[in-house]
Amino acid sequence: MKDLRSLAARVENGRLFILDQTRLPFEEVWLAGDDPREMTGHIQRLSVRGAPLIGVAAALCLARFMEGGASLSAGLEACAALRKARPTAVNLMWAMDRMKSVVEAGAEVADLVREAERIFDEDVALCESMAEKGSALLFGNESVLTHCNAGALATAGIGTALGVIRRGFEKGLVAHVYVDETRPLLQGARLTAWELHRLGIPHTLITDSMAPILMRDGRIQRVFVGADRVAANGDFANKVGTYGISVQAAFHSIPFHPVAPWSTVDLACADGKSIPIEEREPAEVHGYGAARWANPESLVFNPAFDVTPVMHITSMVTDCGVFGRSELIAGRLLMEKR
Amino acid sequence: MKDLRSLAARVENGRLFILDQTRLPFEEVWLAGDDPREMTGHIQRLSVRGAPLIGVAAALCLARFMEGGASLSAGLEACAALRKARPTAVNLMWAMDRMKSVVEAGAEVADLVREAERIFDEDVALCESMAEKGSALLFGNESVLTHCNAGALATAGIGTALGVIRRGFEKGLVAHVYVDETRPLLQGARLTAWELHRLGIPHTLITDSMAPILMRDGRIQRVFVGADRVAANGDFANKVGTYGISVQAAFHSIPFHPVAPWSTVDLACADGKSIPIEEREPAEVHGYGAARWANPESLVFNPAFDVTPVMHITSMVTDCGVFGRSELIAGRLLMEKR
Repeated sequence: MKDLRSLAARVENGRLFILDQTRLPFEEVWLAGDDPREMTGHIQRLSVRGAPLIGVAAALCLARFMEGGASLSAGLEACAALRKARPTAVNLMWAMDRMKSVVEAGAEVADLVREAERIFDEDVALCESMAEKGSALLFGNESVLTHCNAGALATAGIGTALGVIRRGFEKGLVAHVYVDETRPLLQGARLTAWELHRLGIPHTLITDSMAPILMRDGRIQRVFVGADRVAANGDFANKVGTYGISVQAAFHSIPFHPVAPWSTVDLACADGKSIPIEEREPAEVHGYGAARWANPESLVFNPAFDVTPVMHITSMVTDCGVFGRSELIAGRLLMEKR
Repeated sequence: MKDLRSLAARVENGRLFILDQTRLPFEEVWLAGDDPREMTGHIQRLSVRGAPLIGVAAALCLARFMEGGASLSAGLEACAALRKARPTAVNLMWAMDRMKSVVEAGAEVADLVREAERIFDEDVALCESMAEKGSALLFGNESVLTHCNAGALATAGIGTALGVIRRGFEKGLVAHVYVDETRPLLQGARLTAWELHRLGIPHTLITDSMAPILMRDGRIQRVFVGADRVAANGDFANKVGTYGISVQAAFHSIPFHPVAPWSTVDLACADGKSIPIEEREPAEVHGYGAARWANPESLVFNPAFDVTPVMHITSMVTDCGVFGRSELIAGRLLMEKR
């Protein structure tokens, strides 16, 4: 496999490494990613995360596994196990289906490796395309809000929502970024703030409950968020809290844009109701990491994602173009050839 | 001073003790509360918190100080220092002004002690009154949402918003309580969940970002929150995040009720814009307690409170009665004799 390098995944001398995102922002620890069973664990524990990146990492892992001499049946088994490591992000399933169809076509290991490399390279290009299209929406001097992490850590490229914001900043159109800390797993505080700091982009970290007053006070002009799965009608799943932000944006008349590559679109889901939502451990809400603070006997509700209806979307940024709400409602995604 | 006993403040054999709420839910540590300088620190570090309780605790502390033989000038100085320990909750100022006017009237120490005892006893009765009036709003079998802690830990009695919920549960009208964890200081996770668990009231802890989907799905029928200051027009300040909840409640057509004793009403504030909002340390958003997780160089916005406009209130529960939005807008609070 050729050398590949992104912020959170690397292939060096034929070996795959992934950045352990649970250790950021304080430690940069790289984990071996060549073994599918380990990679499944990395994905479940969120060491590797971000809808596009988990698809890319799973594909690279599977290719490395086959390159290492695994049998066809072991490969197909690993492919199936990786495919269901997390239930909501569809990019993982999309990437595994691509790999599987190459295997089933009776291709050589070299073809599989090339397919994984292609998935990586394509993701880099998709991010560039979304960044260009999304940043063209900006009027200038805008303060924008983002939630969770949809940046370079979540993709092989510069990110989806955060890639748009980064390009907007480079063009002088984004002045400031408000970052939701994103409870329970704090991807905004840990990852997005770290990425923005590395890039030198002015930003302010807030708790998830503070964005509404910033919107009320005219201090947020636009919202960009990622997506883990987009249904055919434009409804989309993203990190829990996104639905609430969409309501606040609608209430305060602030443009609201999900940003996602086409691999996030699942035309098999007619609408948001068909998107499965992963429920995670209560321990994530009782504290964070080793820190515990909640009454330990209290029940918890902990969905990892929520669904935002197309009605709350101003426009959706994809590598295939920017689709307005009414286009989405009219079935634009179903008409898109890809 | 006579013996007094509430969930978070006690007078025993003439000495004042307060429960260190920063150590809950894991440890019940009682702090000495007789020294005004120490009490000011306890209030600022939130060991004692909750708008009504800080007024009560400051009054008891001042009376104990005078009882211990402090001079008149030392007493007035302590009164002034306690009065400004926190800037948003008006109950503290109200309680200190009551104590000061007794001092200025040239009263004996015994009168001061009686005034502090009266402030305590009145708060117990006010909570009962609010609980009765507020629970009369419930239709039955309701799941309610609350934010922060407005319970027995925040008052000398059974609480404001949580007192209403408790009485509603006792009457069989509240079936379940959803508790916002309430970042950054997690009073919901630490305190409200602990209180509800002690009372055997079924409840579910959620992150602040999860309430909107519960509202959307019809799983929350009503919102009760406390208040730290109510302006003459009905606008009110409460724990940061309350404004956002009020928007979600309006959007999802869910009744939204602040609950507060009359001592929380500040007729000198014409509207919410005149309420000073305390900004607290960035460290509170970079982590919690000793746990740090955010990129340490990222700027932070950390207002402790936000202001909810009267337009988002269905009705306000006070010990003087339940006032609907249109009554509040029409100036009902200004007409109230007290």
